[in-house]
This record gives sequence, C-alpha cells and structure tokens, in this order.
Amino acid sequence: MSFENRITQLFKIELPIIQAGMVWASGWELASAVSNSGGLGILGAGSMYPAILKEQIQKTKAATSKPFAVNLPMLYPDLQAHIDIIIEEKVPIVFTSAGNPKTWTATLKAAGCTVVHVVSSALFAQKAEAAGCDAVVAEGFEAGGHNGREETTTMVLIPLVHKAVKIPVIAAGGIATGAQMLATFVLGAEAVQIGSRFVCSMESCAHIHFKQAILEAGEGDTQLGLKQLAPVRLLKNDFANSILNLEREGEGKEALAAFLGRGRAKKGMYEGDMKEGELEIGQVSAMIDKIKPAAQIVQEIWKDFNAGVEHIKALPLNRSF
Amino acid sequence: MSFENRITQLFKIELPIIQAGMVWASGWELASAVSNSGGLGILGAGSMYPAILKEQIQKTKAATSKPFAVNLPMLYPDLQAHIDIIIEEKVPIVFTSAGNPKTWTATLKAAGCTVVHVVSSALFAQKAEAAGCDAVVAEGFEAGGHNGREETTTMVLIPLVHKAVKIPVIAAGGIATGAQMLATFVLGAEAVQIGSRFVCSMESCAHIHFKQAILEAGEGDTQLGLKQLAPVRLLKNDFANSILNLEREGEGKEALAAFLGRGRAKKGMYEGDMKEGELEIGQVSAMIDKIKPAAQIVQEIWKDFNAGVEHIKALPLNRSF
Repeated sequence: MSFENRITQLFKIELPIIQAGMVWASGWELASAVSNSGGLGILGAGSMYPAILKEQIQKTKAATSKPFAVNLPMLYPDLQAHIDIIIEEKVPIVFTSAGNPKTWTATLKAAGCTVVHVVSSALFAQKAEAAGCDAVVAEGFEAGGHNGREETTTMVLIPLVHKAVKIPVIAAGGIATGAQMLATFVLGAEAVQIGSRFVCSMESCAHIHFKQAILEAGEGDTQLGLKQLAPVRLLKNDFANSILNLEREGEGKEALAAFLGRGRAKKGMYEGDMKEGELEIGQVSAMIDKIKPAAQIVQEIWKDFNAGVEHIKALPLNRSF
Repeated sequence: MSFENRITQLFKIELPIIQAGMVWASGWELASAVSNSGGLGILGAGSMYPAILKEQIQKTKAATSKPFAVNLPMLYPDLQAHIDIIIEEKVPIVFTSAGNPKTWTATLKAAGCTVVHVVSSALFAQKAEAAGCDAVVAEGFEAGGHNGREETTTMVLIPLVHKAVKIPVIAAGGIATGAQMLATFVLGAEAVQIGSRFVCSMESCAHIHFKQAILEAGEGDTQLGLKQLAPVRLLKNDFANSILNLEREGEGKEALAAFLGRGRAKKGMYEGDMKEGELEIGQVSAMIDKIKPAAQIVQEIWKDFNAGVEHIKALPLNRSF
C-alpha cells in the first residue's frame, strides 16, 4: 500500500491523503493517527494558544515518527508566537491559509520547513508559487469552514489551478471517498486534503454531539454564510439560520459581527452546543454515516481509490456496436 | 470512436456526450450538429413559442437522421401546446426540468418518448425514478442558468444521486472538458450534459457579444442570484450586479421580480445587450477561450476523455519506494 508522486516525495509519506488541519477537531491524537497510517496528519493551530500548540506538537512527535504538519491560519492574532514555536520544534511541514503567502513563506523555508498555502483561485495559486511555496491546496466552494469569495467548485477549480502553476496541487472540498479522490486526480490533483470525514473519526477532538450531527446531515444541510465578513460553510442550526436571516434582511458587517460575537466555533464544535454554536463542515457531511478510526478511514479511501482505477480501466472504450 | 453503456443504448447514440437544451442558444443548427457528431443534441424549448418549436423540430429532422431531444422547462406557460407538438412530431427523447416529473412523464412515455428529468438532489432523483423517468440529469451548483436550492456541487451530487437511484445518471455542471467528463464517470455518471461550452460553438444561436463575453470571463465572474425567486447562475454584468445589490440590501421577491421584468434573457443572450441583459452561464466560462464548430467540441472532449483514461492507467499504483 504505497504510491509515489511529487506530493508523497515532498512530504516523505506513503499515501497522498492529507487530513486537514481544523480548528477544534484536529489535535495530536488525530494528526498522529493519520500520519501513522501512511497519510499526512495536520494539527489545526487556529484554535490553539501558543503554549497549547507547543504541547500538541510535542505530543504528536511522541506518538509518531512519521512526518506531520501544522496548519496556520494567518489571521491568528499572535502569529509570530506560533511561527517561533514551529521553527523551534522543527515542524517539517506547514500549511498556511487565510492570508498573504508572501508574509511568512521565506522565513519558514529558511528554517527548513516545507510550505504549502491554501487557495481558492488560480490567481492566488500563482501568488503562492511566486512566494516560494512548495505546493498549494486548491479548496472548492463545497468545503467546510472558511472558503473563497469566488465560489468556484472543486470540479472547476482544480483544472484551473493545475493549468496555472507548476507546483503540485492538492485538492480539497467535496472529498470524502476514494472515488472523489480519484476524480480530483483526473482533474490534475496529486493529493487530497480531507476535512469533514476526519472530523468524524474516533481520534478527532470534536464534540460527540457535533460528530452525531454530521452523521445525521443530509443534502442541502450546509450553507455558505457570513459572506460580508469571511465566507464560511456551516451546518444549518439555530445560529446559522439566524445569520442567514440577518443577511437576507440586508444587515451589514457590524450587525453580523456583533451577532457572531466571540467563541462561537469553540461553543459548537468543541463544547457541543448544537443550537448556538458555529458548526464548520463541508457538503460531504451528507455522505458520512459512521464514526471510524482514522486509520480505517485512510485505508477505506485508498481501497476505494484503487477500485475507481479498476472501474476506469474497465470502461468499454473503442468497442463498436 | 464509439462507446457503449446504458445511456448510449437508451438514446441510440455513439458517444455519451449530451448538449444541454438551453434557452436562446440551442436551436436546430446546434442540436443537429451535435447529433450528427455522435452525441445527443437538444433543442431548448423554453425560449420558443409553440409554432417556433414545431419549425425547429422539423428543421432538426431535416438536418440529421440521428436521435435528438427537446428540453422542456415545465414552468413554460403553454406547456400543453409544447407536449402536443412533441408527440405529434414523434420527438424520440424529452428532457424535462423545473417542475414535478409526475405531471407529464406518463403521457410522454405512453406516446413512445424516452423521458429524462433534470434534478439537483438525490431526493428529486428518486422522485423522477418513481415517476418512470428513464434517466436523470444531476446538475451541480456550478452549472449555468437555473439551479437547485441545495447548492450541492457536482463533486458531491453525482455520488449521492448515483447511490440513490438505479436509472443511469447524466452529470451536469462544471463540465467543459473530457477530464471533467471522466471525473464525473469516476463518481458514477454514465454521460455528461454540457451547456456553456456549446453556447460558444459556431452553431449556437446565442449572440456573438454573449459568446465573446464568455471567452473573456475568468474565475469568480459568475454568481448565483435571484435565490428568492428561482436561483440562476449569471455572468456578472450591470444587470446581475444590480440584482446582487438588491439582494444584499434585503429586498424581497416583489422588488426583485419588478426589477427583473420580462424578456431579460432574450435581451442578453439573443440580442446581445451585455449591460442590461440576463446572461446565463456556468463557472466553466473561465475555461472556455475559443468559439469552435460543435463537432470539433465533441471530438476534443472525447479525445481528452480517452487521454484521461490513459493518465489514470499510468498512475504508479502499488509501486514501493
């Protein structure tokens, strides 16, 4: 069970399956479980104070000898402290998001880190490449959590980004199965970053109420909201519906920010308040129906990817009738 | 150059490539060109008075001996007249959309038509199957023109629909190339319905100004608007921006309907008013850069699909390192 391409070589991993670094869901248990299973596990630093991040990195190192990464949303208020810890702890790979890749890429590269930036358009992918990033994650509209203003879906985004840059492209958004993974490879991706399905792993630190709500979610149960602030895909609940109503009534940024308040994401995803909490999840929540160990998720995706390849090989091409 | 699966057998065509029936773009020249090239051409009846539809069907029959279809948006005010003409003219295949498949499927089937319904969710796909439809088109959020309220993208929708029904699934939304076509096959589709790319064919009757605007469109240049009435993906222009502003300001259905007025789609797509007209097009407009003959588009997509299969066959699976 192994695969070799530019991404597995770059990260020194066995399978091109990356678990997204997610706030309030991906701590050391999940990241180390995914890395130990041959993929790449990522700590979600966006919900960690610097001291917590340091502790989580150390616990990850103790739990796996394999490569792992940290996801760094560049909106984080004390970003310098996070950067210092990442360098000090010699984290091998950093995924940056929600900010300008020019700001920190050179510093991280000089410290020996492999740097990947998350983008929602070919234009930003080119900026990431110009900033020296080693790869990009191209994340489509269907993804959970923070999202691009262009609203370009994975089916359209991956070919656009693949054409625009020479560095490898990691597809994200709408990927929970090996068939979806293979579909993105057909479009030019060399790896996938999977979020929602790993939220529903045993090792994810998301609240069990949140995991159960994802299992129950069906079609149309997520929606992109808060477009005036920073667009984010949410599971529809009382909180998300209030946001959507405020938007429909024409409320501006200030009213939305005031209603949002602070700590909503923690309240929902970590503390399990399914009514008033913010629940960031992707459209694939409609496809997830069981909480499983992370290693099993990786294996199922890889098996399904291989089955997809066989399905394609068996297409009745050039048969006449 | 041929392919055999449930869709090519059902429609008696050579290639599982279907040209979407589009208002103000797909008349007899386009439909017959696509059918003559081995795919399935569709007349867009939504912008035709009954007498025009009759004439267009007769011209299509004169221009091709191959199967063709009519797309029938069920919101059309004089739908009975359209149905009568379709039956009288023995149109072999009908694609219905924007309405309940229970209303007309039995009538059309009794008259010998193959019936396909366009859906935006697995739930509606099951309703179409229960109504006796022979296949469904599953159309994702990235598609041009009228669109589902669930906002499910093609990457997520196709597996959901494929799992929900036994009848064959035709993928639509975000498909302009053979790679995108193959990606949908990986997800379970057995054919694709392609709109935007055929709007930019020589034979499409869309106005040349509209075709040129599509060639110039880039990422993020379309947006889903009019969600309170019936969601529709539009190329951003003065008209679409006004709609988006009204929505942002919290205007209701009445104000939007009043601003929309009548004849906007004809004004934009057929008469070429790029400022005040309604321009229905998909996100793949960012990938289209040349107006070509329809037959060449079909051939390029098929060649690209086959190249994608070779790409997948060449994946370095099970190689160790």
